[in-house]
Amino acid sequence: MSSAAQTESGTGRRTGPWTYLKRWLGRLTGTSPARAAMLIFGVTIAVFASLLNMPWATASGSSATFHDALFVATSAVTVTGLTPVNTAEHWSFAGELVILIGIQVGGLGIITIAALLAISVTRNLGLRTRLVAQEGGISTGSMGETGQVIRTVVICSAVVEALLMLVLIPRFIQINGDISSGVWDGTFYAISAFNNAGFVAHAEGFAGFGNDPVVIWTIMVGVFLGSLGFPVLFMLWTNRWHVRRWNLHTKLTLEVTLLLMVIGAVLYGVMEWSNSSTIGDMSVAEKLQNSLFASVNMRSGGFSVVESNLQNSETMLISDALMFAGGGSASTAGGIKVTTIAVIWLAFLAEARGDTESTAHGRTIPPSAVRVAVSVVAMGATLVLISTVWLMYITGLDMGRPLYESVSAFATVGLTSGLTEDLPPEGLYVLAALMFAGRVGIITFAASLTVRQRSRVRYRYPEGRPMIG
Amino acid sequence: MSSAAQTESGTGRRTGPWTYLKRWLGRLTGTSPARAAMLIFGVTIAVFASLLNMPWATASGSSATFHDALFVATSAVTVTGLTPVNTAEHWSFAGELVILIGIQVGGLGIITIAALLAISVTRNLGLRTRLVAQEGGISTGSMGETGQVIRTVVICSAVVEALLMLVLIPRFIQINGDISSGVWDGTFYAISAFNNAGFVAHAEGFAGFGNDPVVIWTIMVGVFLGSLGFPVLFMLWTNRWHVRRWNLHTKLTLEVTLLLMVIGAVLYGVMEWSNSSTIGDMSVAEKLQNSLFASVNMRSGGFSVVESNLQNSETMLISDALMFAGGGSASTAGGIKVTTIAVIWLAFLAEARGDTESTAHGRTIPPSAVRVAVSVVAMGATLVLISTVWLMYITGLDMGRPLYESVSAFATVGLTSGLTEDLPPEGLYVLAALMFAGRVGIITFAASLTVRQRSRVRYRYPEGRPMIG
Ligand SMILES: [K+]
Ligand SMILES: [K+]
Repeated sequence: MSSAAQTESGTGRRTGPWTYLKRWLGRLTGTSPARAAMLIFGVTIAVFASLLNMPWATASGSSATFHDALFVATSAVTVTGLTPVNTAEHWSFAGELVILIGIQVGGLGIITIAALLAISVTRNLGLRTRLVAQEGGISTGSMGETGQVIRTVVICSAVVEALLMLVLIPRFIQINGDISSGVWDGTFYAISAFNNAGFVAHAEGFAGFGNDPVVIWTIMVGVFLGSLGFPVLFMLWTNRWHVRRWNLHTKLTLEVTLLLMVIGAVLYGVMEWSNSSTIGDMSVAEKLQNSLFASVNMRSGGFSVVESNLQNSETMLISDALMFAGGGSASTAGGIKVTTIAVIWLAFLAEARGDTESTAHGRTIPPSAVRVAVSVVAMGATLVLISTVWLMYITGLDMGRPLYESVSAFATVGLTSGLTEDLPPEGLYVLAALMFAGRVGIITFAASLTVRQRSRVRYRYPEGRPMIG
Repeated sequence: MSSAAQTESGTGRRTGPWTYLKRWLGRLTGTSPARAAMLIFGVTIAVFASLLNMPWATASGSSATFHDALFVATSAVTVTGLTPVNTAEHWSFAGELVILIGIQVGGLGIITIAALLAISVTRNLGLRTRLVAQEGGISTGSMGETGQVIRTVVICSAVVEALLMLVLIPRFIQINGDISSGVWDGTFYAISAFNNAGFVAHAEGFAGFGNDPVVIWTIMVGVFLGSLGFPVLFMLWTNRWHVRRWNLHTKLTLEVTLLLMVIGAVLYGVMEWSNSSTIGDMSVAEKLQNSLFASVNMRSGGFSVVESNLQNSETMLISDALMFAGGGSASTAGGIKVTTIAVIWLAFLAEARGDTESTAHGRTIPPSAVRVAVSVVAMGATLVLISTVWLMYITGLDMGRPLYESVSAFATVGLTSGLTEDLPPEGLYVLAALMFAGRVGIITFAASLTVRQRSRVRYRYPEGRPMIG
């Protein structure tokens, strides 16, 4: 009787609106995952743009311009952090709340959709390859279906963000000397950090916290965790430090992330060491701390203690490369993703060693993974090139700043050379399109490439090997 | 008796110095082709640098500086065309002759060594793959051994250069009103064009010929033929327009070359149409002609009617991309090579269509070709990035010109933003190293990657597929 009642109430729950959403999402992602993801993101951005276009959303009380509202909505939902207006000064508290909700919805959406796409990929790959895909981040075997993924993603985000708030809120209460503004700042930065959004709640930017280790390190940990991606966090959560149980995706993601973090910090430190506009006048400990902070944020976080434009132009070029690289798959970080880099590097190593196959950690990387990786890089490079040329044409500027801003938008990093503030509307539309393409485009592009694979069997042609190089 | 005498004299010829050289080259290329090629190029550059360092090589009669001599020798032998000094003003006639011989030796050397490397690759690939490699440019079956390759390359170069001279010499005699200087100019430009060297014999550069169709078109044809590469020229020579008999390498090279030529010309025309510092003030016909000329030369020729630095900075960025692409394999053109681009594009197409294998013209491209292509691109991009950062550091300039000069050096194009003239010695050494790496490095790198393949048989790991994107 009690068991029957439970089942019934269970059945009751399953026909609620939550269930409909789940089913609808499941159907959409099952039939055309890529189009579904594009649609969901497009609609979400439109909703947040409408909200930001309301008079109550601005500090002045008069409606924001359409292009500003659209740009900031896109920037929030794609968790980029680029903005043509000063977040703290231009928007009302309600406007800032809309942005923060946009970040949270966008961040959860990215992770969820990427995870669901991975599942639908797995499903489409057939039984044999499905076993293989468990080595990739996600598999139905270990995580269950749509609803369970969404629930796990939400819980995972909530737990990490709550931990970040536990540190940040008391610290900001202490700094501000005021409880309500401290709670708001702590909440804002916790969400902005874990979602790698890079939006700042202070009019003067993040510069004031360059020598506040509590804030700096908490933000850094939040950005770092967010940039690993949900499949990796899930794997770490379930298997802890039993490294041998980690799957290939987790191992590669952690390796490349740590490697790029160290390279970025060392290069940043070396190049900016005596630049008094950035870290030149700091103590050695602060220089080191800020180099690491810059490195972690370059690959997607988007928080910066110094104005990027004051950096040496060499530093900006190195940043371009690291921003383009980005973070982990199914994370709030953007870019071409660290596993893409790993796959290309492993392909190179295999050739250099004379192996027929790329291998890592006792696993063979299928050749099609190399082709997907190359396609993602080629698509990213082409988009950035087109946007850079276009921004150069609009602004009449030399290459440096348009390139930096384009890469930052494509990789949804949010670091700025100050160009976004100065752009005319047509420039903002270009960057907004790039944020959308870099965020939703790359995920769906990679997923649909992977899905389509192996769907046709055809006559095998004899091999032909053109000369290369 | 007469037949025996012939055989004897044949045997006699085979023990001469020519035979020793052939044998030595054959042994070297057989055992360690990559190291042999590096060594040969290094020694050749050293010889030409010593010659250019002689007092009689300069117009002033006092020795050139070591860095200028080394740089120009490297530029000539790698057929790049970058130069820190004005060729016509700085060197004596003897010096210019040394440069011209350097170009001819370098050009022949590149083609020969690339062809020999391809043969040694073929030999190392084993019987089955050797049949496959016939689809690549070169094969022992169709062309015979070392000596025969060298002979065919020399004859091929001589024939094309003679044809170019037949047009250019009379025209330059007409322009100069003087036979000896006309012969010299015609010879210089014929050799410089076919070898894609881009060195000019006029102190005021090539600007004066912007509206001389005979010179412009002849140079353009010479550069175009040179950039196709010896395997393609050989295939065209033996099979003429019987397209179905062309091998895969020839088809892909011609397709991508023509495509990039058209794209480059259209973009150049559109972007410079009303730039009065470049082609803005010309007639429509001249604008079109010069856009095509610029496009052909961007991908390796290095001749320019206008100063690159007067172009829009957007045009320079597009040029960066086209220079990086380069020309055909085993040609005097540099860059990552058009077949590399074809292989990557085909890999992308295969993924987008859901095919398990890349195919083109009824042939399957082996996955290892994709890996070699990706490795070449990654190596090139890394070298250019390092050089750009380094030149920015040395000169304190923004990204545009250091990037342009680095790509031009790596792809042995020789177009200049004017930076080479202003660089201190340490900057010249960086660019010289880049020319060497771009020229010899890429060829040997690709060849040794291809050779090493399939040399090991090993335990096959289960597949693991990390998420990408
Ligand atoms: K961001
Ligand atoms: K050249």
